[in-house]
Amino acid sequence: MLKKVLLCGLGGAVALTVGILLGHFGIKQDSTSPECVQDVDESVIAQFLAEVDNNQIEENLRQLTKVPHMATTAGDEETVKYMLKRWQDPDSGLDDAWREEYMVFLSFPDEKTPNRVSVVSPTGNAIFNVSEKEKPYTTDQEDPAVVQPYAAYSPAGHAKGKLVYANYGTMEDYTHLSQTVNLSDTIAIVKYGGAGRPAKAINGALFGVIGVLVYTEPKDINDNEMSDASQTYPHSWYMPPTGVERGSYSFDFGDLLTPYLAAKENTYRIPESDIKGIPPIPTQPIGFLDAYSLICALDGSPAPESWQGAFNCTYNFGGPGFKDTSSFANSDVQMDIYNKGELRNSSNVMGVIRGSVEPDRYIIYGNHRDSWVHGAIDPSSGTAVMLEITRVLGKMVKAGRWKPRRSIVFGSWGAEEFGLIGSTEYAEEYHSKLRARTVAYINVDISVFGNVSLQAQASPAAQSVVLTAAKQVKIPKKDSMSVYDNWIQYSNRTSPTHGIIPNVGFLTGAGSDYAAFMHFLGITSMDISHTYDRRKTNARTYPAYHTAYDTFDYASKYIDPGFTSHQTVARTAGNVLLRLSDSLLLPFNLTDYAESLEQYLNTALTNFGNTLAQKKISMEPLSNAVAKFRAATNRLNELILNSNFIKESPLKARSINDQLMLLERAFIDPTAFPDKYGYRHVIWTSRTSGVPTFPGLADAFDQARKSDLQEDWNQVHRHLSIVTQAIQGAAYTLVDVI
Amino acid sequence: MLKKVLLCGLGGAVALTVGILLGHFGIKQDSTSPECVQDVDESVIAQFLAEVDNNQIEENLRQLTKVPHMATTAGDEETVKYMLKRWQDPDSGLDDAWREEYMVFLSFPDEKTPNRVSVVSPTGNAIFNVSEKEKPYTTDQEDPAVVQPYAAYSPAGHAKGKLVYANYGTMEDYTHLSQTVNLSDTIAIVKYGGAGRPAKAINGALFGVIGVLVYTEPKDINDNEMSDASQTYPHSWYMPPTGVERGSYSFDFGDLLTPYLAAKENTYRIPESDIKGIPPIPTQPIGFLDAYSLICALDGSPAPESWQGAFNCTYNFGGPGFKDTSSFANSDVQMDIYNKGELRNSSNVMGVIRGSVEPDRYIIYGNHRDSWVHGAIDPSSGTAVMLEITRVLGKMVKAGRWKPRRSIVFGSWGAEEFGLIGSTEYAEEYHSKLRARTVAYINVDISVFGNVSLQAQASPAAQSVVLTAAKQVKIPKKDSMSVYDNWIQYSNRTSPTHGIIPNVGFLTGAGSDYAAFMHFLGITSMDISHTYDRRKTNARTYPAYHTAYDTFDYASKYIDPGFTSHQTVARTAGNVLLRLSDSLLLPFNLTDYAESLEQYLNTALTNFGNTLAQKKISMEPLSNAVAKFRAATNRLNELILNSNFIKESPLKARSINDQLMLLERAFIDPTAFPDKYGYRHVIWTSRTSGVPTFPGLADAFDQARKSDLQEDWNQVHRHLSIVTQAIQGAAYTLVDVI
Repeated sequence: MLKKVLLCGLGGAVALTVGILLGHFGIKQDSTSPECVQDVDESVIAQFLAEVDNNQIEENLRQLTKVPHMATTAGDEETVKYMLKRWQDPDSGLDDAWREEYMVFLSFPDEKTPNRVSVVSPTGNAIFNVSEKEKPYTTDQEDPAVVQPYAAYSPAGHAKGKLVYANYGTMEDYTHLSQTVNLSDTIAIVKYGGAGRPAKAINGALFGVIGVLVYTEPKDINDNEMSDASQTYPHSWYMPPTGVERGSYSFDFGDLLTPYLAAKENTYRIPESDIKGIPPIPTQPIGFLDAYSLICALDGSPAPESWQGAFNCTYNFGGPGFKDTSSFANSDVQMDIYNKGELRNSSNVMGVIRGSVEPDRYIIYGNHRDSWVHGAIDPSSGTAVMLEITRVLGKMVKAGRWKPRRSIVFGSWGAEEFGLIGSTEYAEEYHSKLRARTVAYINVDISVFGNVSLQAQASPAAQSVVLTAAKQVKIPKKDSMSVYDNWIQYSNRTSPTHGIIPNVGFLTGAGSDYAAFMHFLGITSMDISHTYDRRKTNARTYPAYHTAYDTFDYASKYIDPGFTSHQTVARTAGNVLLRLSDSLLLPFNLTDYAESLEQYLNTALTNFGNTLAQKKISMEPLSNAVAKFRAATNRLNELILNSNFIKESPLKARSINDQLMLLERAFIDPTAFPDKYGYRHVIWTSRTSGVPTFPGLADAFDQARKSDLQEDWNQVHRHLSIVTQAIQGAAYTLVDVI
Repeated sequence: MLKKVLLCGLGGAVALTVGILLGHFGIKQDSTSPECVQDVDESVIAQFLAEVDNNQIEENLRQLTKVPHMATTAGDEETVKYMLKRWQDPDSGLDDAWREEYMVFLSFPDEKTPNRVSVVSPTGNAIFNVSEKEKPYTTDQEDPAVVQPYAAYSPAGHAKGKLVYANYGTMEDYTHLSQTVNLSDTIAIVKYGGAGRPAKAINGALFGVIGVLVYTEPKDINDNEMSDASQTYPHSWYMPPTGVERGSYSFDFGDLLTPYLAAKENTYRIPESDIKGIPPIPTQPIGFLDAYSLICALDGSPAPESWQGAFNCTYNFGGPGFKDTSSFANSDVQMDIYNKGELRNSSNVMGVIRGSVEPDRYIIYGNHRDSWVHGAIDPSSGTAVMLEITRVLGKMVKAGRWKPRRSIVFGSWGAEEFGLIGSTEYAEEYHSKLRARTVAYINVDISVFGNVSLQAQASPAAQSVVLTAAKQVKIPKKDSMSVYDNWIQYSNRTSPTHGIIPNVGFLTGAGSDYAAFMHFLGITSMDISHTYDRRKTNARTYPAYHTAYDTFDYASKYIDPGFTSHQTVARTAGNVLLRLSDSLLLPFNLTDYAESLEQYLNTALTNFGNTLAQKKISMEPLSNAVAKFRAATNRLNELILNSNFIKESPLKARSINDQLMLLERAFIDPTAFPDKYGYRHVIWTSRTSGVPTFPGLADAFDQARKSDLQEDWNQVHRHLSIVTQAIQGAAYTLVDVI
C-alpha cells in the first residue's frame, strides 16, 4: 500500500519503470497507473474496525473528564495538552499536530459575586433563595472549578418584579399570556425547549418582561414521575431536582464581536452594544426543585392544559405574582445577575494525516473539546471516540501500513458551548483554502446520548456512505446484527429510490460545529451519534445535559456501560472517514440529493402552489430546476458508470471528484439570508416555518401569509428565484464539464 | 499533438502500452506519461501569429458595422446571427456555439416623441432648440436606426428652470457653485468626465437641481483648437460640433431589476422605484455646438480658471440663468424627456473549443457585441479581433492540427452599453461553475483606441503572461521591434523585481465586461487594447466614442488605417490565450502579486500609518499578512522549481494549478462592500479615494478623516481586518497544501 503511495507521490518516472517492467514481464495490461488509482482497501477498513477498542475509549473518557474543562479555563488547557500529547505520540500519533488560538468574547458569572435569585417580601427580606449550586452526589460536583449555573451572554443587572409563568417563552406563549395578564415589569419563568434559549428573553422583553428564569420541566426530561431525588441520578440517568442546564443564550454562531472575521488579537471588534440575538434582560437558569416552589405558589388563572407540567399543582399564569395564600404572598422575585463579558484566548487543537495521492483534498473530522462542567457526554464522549480513531489510524500510519489517499484533518474545537466559536473562527480564517479543498466534514459531538441505536444527520450527498458504513459495522454483543439493521428498527423512512431505510435527517440547524462547514462554507457535512429509544422516553435530551452531573460516573453507569455504543460510533464514523479519504471516486450519492430536492419541491408545491398561483408567482422555474438537477445527476452517474478509472487518466477521476466535492458549494448564496449570520446554504439553512421545505421560501411564505403585504409576497418570489438559481447552478456543475 | 491529446483523453491503458513499448524498444525513460503533460507548443503559437490577418479583421469589421446594432434591436440580432454563422462554420468554427437569452431592463428614448431641450422665453416661446440628431457626414448617420442621443436610465419628465454651469458635476463642483448661486429649481449644464455619468445628476439633485445637461467639452476631447466643423470628422478623428456621447447613466452593473439573480423570464424583479444609482432628475447629453450657445450666454460670476473650457467666452456660473445682454435674456431652459424602461430579450453568443486534457478548466475570452450606434470601435474593433482569433484557432481545430489543453470559452456579450448586463447575468447564472473552473478571463472590448502602442490592465497574476506575449509579437511595419519594446516607450513603470517594464495597470473599475469576472467572481482577468499617444493629445478617449460617427469609415481612416494595430492586438491577446489554455503549468506570476500588495501596503503605511497609530489602530497585522503572502509565494515558486512535471504524477501539476487558479478567489469577500453591488474583490474594488491602495481601507480612511466620528474610525479598522484576513487567507492557499 505504502509503495503505491510513494510511486504516485514521487511521480511518473517510477510509474513508467513499472510500465516498462510490465512490458518485459508481461504482467496484465489493465492494471496501469497503479500509483494514482489508490482506492479504498477493504482490508484496511477491516483492520481498523477490529482495532477500535471500547476499553481505550473508556480510558480516553476517564482522562478527559478528570476536571471541569469549560472553555479557556485551566481544565480546558489540560485537555489541550492531553490532545497534543496524544496526537504527537511517536507510535500512535498523527503526521502533525498543533494548537491555534483565537481571542473570543465569552460570558462568565462573577466568581466573587454569585448570581442570586430570591423571593423578596414587601419589607425587603429575602424569604427564599434559589440554589446557587447543584447538590453534590459525587466528588465531581464538589470540584471548585464547577461553574455556577448561568445563562451565558445574559446581561448583568438587577430586576425585581412579580412572577408570571410563560410556558416555553415563545412569541405565541407571551401573546397568549398577555391577553389576560399585564406583563409590564414582571419576571417570567419559562421552560427549556420550544424556542431557542435567547428567544425566551428577547420575546419576553417585547412584552415588558424585565427578567427571565428558565428551568427544565421534569415532564420534558424525566419522564414525568421520575423526579424525586430517590429516583434521579445517582440512582438513574434522570436529572436531579437541583440540576440546572447551563447554556449559551446567543442566537448567532461564532465569536459575537468579530462577524465574518477570525478573532485575532488585533481584529476589529464591533461594540458590545451592537451584538444582536442575546437577552436584553437578565436571565438565569434554575433547577426544577426551585421552579416547583415558585410555580406552585403562582396566583392567577390556570394556564392551559398544554402548559401544565409534572409538578403536583396547577400551573397558574401568575397574578402577576404569588397567591395570597402562599408564603410568598405579595412578594417579588428579585434577580441579581453579575455575568460579565470577557475576551479570552481559546484554542483549537489541530492534527493531520497527510494524503499520499491528493494531499490537497481534505476530510475534516471534528468535535469540540470544551464542556460546561466535566462534560463526560457533551462533548467528551465524542472526543474519546475521536481519540480512539486517531490512535488506530495513527498506529497504521506510524507503522507504514497505510496512508490515506486524501489528507485527513482532525479538529478539537474550543468554545463550542458559547456558540460554536472555535470551529467558526477556523472556518472564517481559512475559508478560501477550506472552500477550495474540503471534501467533507464529519462531526461527532455527543457520540452517545443512549445505547440503543445509531442516528445521523447529513447532507443527502453523504447519506449513502453513512449507510454503507452502518451496514458493515456489527453491533458488539449482537454480532450477527449490523448497525444498519438495528438502526432501521428504531428510525426509518421510505425513500422513493431505496424503499425503507434508516432515517438520516437533514442538517438544518446550528446545533454543533458542523454549522460553519455546512451553512457558511457549503461543505458536505454529517453529524453522527448513538441515541436512546425515543419511543420509551420523553426526555428532550439525555437528562444530565449541561449539568454538573454529566460525569464519567454518569456516562459509564447510565449512558453506555461497557462503552460498546462508543465503540460502534467510532467504528461507523471511522469507516465513513476511511471511505471518504481513500475512495478513488468520492462516495457521494447524487441520486439521493435529487430525491431530497424533489421531496422539498413536492412539499412546496402542495403547501404553497395554489396560493402562489393566485398571487401570479410561478413555481414552474423551480420545478424545472429540480428536473434539470435530476437529469444532470443521471448524466453524471452514467459518465461514472462508463468510466474505467483504473485505465483512464487520473485527471478524469479528479475532475469528477471535483464535481462531487463542489456540488454542496453550489448551494451557497451569501445574499440569500442577510439577517441570518453565517447561513448561506439555500437548501439547509435553519427554518422557523413548520413546512419542511426550502427554508427561505417557507419562512417568507409564512410571513407573507400573515401580513398579506405585497412587499412580503415579493420576498416569497425573491426566495423562489434564489433557490431556483441555486439548484439550476448546481445542475450546471454536474453536466458535461464543457 | 492531437495524438497526445487522445492518449490522455482516452486514458492510461494506451499510456501503459506506450510504456511497455518504451520498455521493449528502449526509448528514453524520462519522457513518461506524455498524454497528460501537453504543454504550450511554440510552433502552434508561431503558426497562430503567422495566420492572424489584418485584411480578415478589416472584413470582419465591415460586416459587423453595416447597421447600428444597439442592444436588442434588429441590428443586434443581425450580429447575433453573424457570430453564430462564423462560430458554427464547418471549416473555421468552434466545437460548439449557441445563444443564451436574458430578459433585461433597458432604457430607450421614445421613437415617436423625441426628447427635447429648448430655451424658452418668458412668454413661453421656444427660442432655441438643441439638435435632436447629429449632423450627417456619411450615409451612416442617416440610417433610421441611429438612436437619438439620450441618457439611458434618466427618468422621463419635464423640467424648466434657469441654467447654471457646474463644471464636471462632482460634489465639490456643486458645493462650490452653491456657495454663491442658489441652485434650487435650476437646470445644470455639466461636462463629461470627472465623475461617473449618473453622479452628475444624483449630486445635482442634492442641491436642488431639477435637470441636467451633459456635454463633451472640446478641451477634453478635441485638443482645444480642433473643434471647428472644418477640422473635425470627416476631416480628422476629432468630434464634430453636433456629436453627442450617449451612455448608460447607471452606477451599478448587471440588470438593474435582478441583483444577484440571472434575469430570466420569471425571475423576481425589484420594483423600478427601488433602483439605486440612476439619475433622480431628467438628464440629457448634448453636443458642444449647442453647449456653446448655452454656456456663452450664461450670466453670473466667472467660473474658476480650472472650470474654463475651449469656447471663446468666459464660462460663468449662471445668474442663475442667462445674461440680460444675450438673446436668451430672462429665458429658462426646458427639458422634455420621454425615455422609458423596457424589458427586452438580450442575447449572449457563446462558443467553445473543448480542452483535451483538462476540459473542466476554462479560459474565457469575451467582448460585448452591442453598440450605441454602428460602434465600429466600441465594441466592433474588439469583436473583429475576436472573430479573427476564432477563425485561426477554429481552422487549426477543424484540421486536427491542435486542441487546447484546457477549454476555451468565447463570449459575445449583449447589452454591455447599458451596464455590462450580458456578462454579468452570465456570471450570475453560472457562478458556481465559473468560480470552480475558470482560470482566467481575457477582455478585449475596444481593441484599438489608437495606433501607437499596446496597453493593458490586469490582475498582477497575469501581468507576466501579457508581457511574455508582448515580447513575442512583432509590430507589423516595424518588423524588428516587439510590441513590448514599443509599449515600454509609451508607458512604463519601475518594478522592484523587474526594473523598467511596460506599465500594466490594475483592474480597479467596472469599465467593461471584466467587472463581473474580476470583481464578483474573483477570476484573474485582463483587459487588452491598443491606444494613442497620450503625450500628444488630451482626448479623454477617442473622440467619436458613443457617437454616430463611430463607423467603419472613421475606424479605417483615422483609428487604424491598414488594421495593423488590430492585428497586433489579435496576435498579443491570442498569444496570451494560447499560453493560458495550453501551458502545463499556468503562467501566473505570484511574485508580481506579492509586489503589488507590497506597493499597496507601503502606500497605506505612508498615508495612513501615523494617523492610525494615534487612533490606536495597528497596521501590523496587515504588514504581517503581506509578509506571509510574500513568503508563501516564495515557497510555492520553490516547489514549482523543484518539480519535474514531465516525470511526476499529473495530479501534482493539477494541484499547483488549482492553487494558481484559485488565488484570485481568495480575495473575494461578499461581506466587504455591502453597498457596492457586485464588488467583492478586497484588493481591486473601485475606489473613490485618491490614495492608490486597498480600496476599502482608503475610502473608509477618507470618510473618517472628514467626519472624525468613532464609528467611521471603526470602519477603517474593520476594512483593515477584512483586507488582512483576505491576504492572509490567500497566503494559506499558497503554502504547502497540508
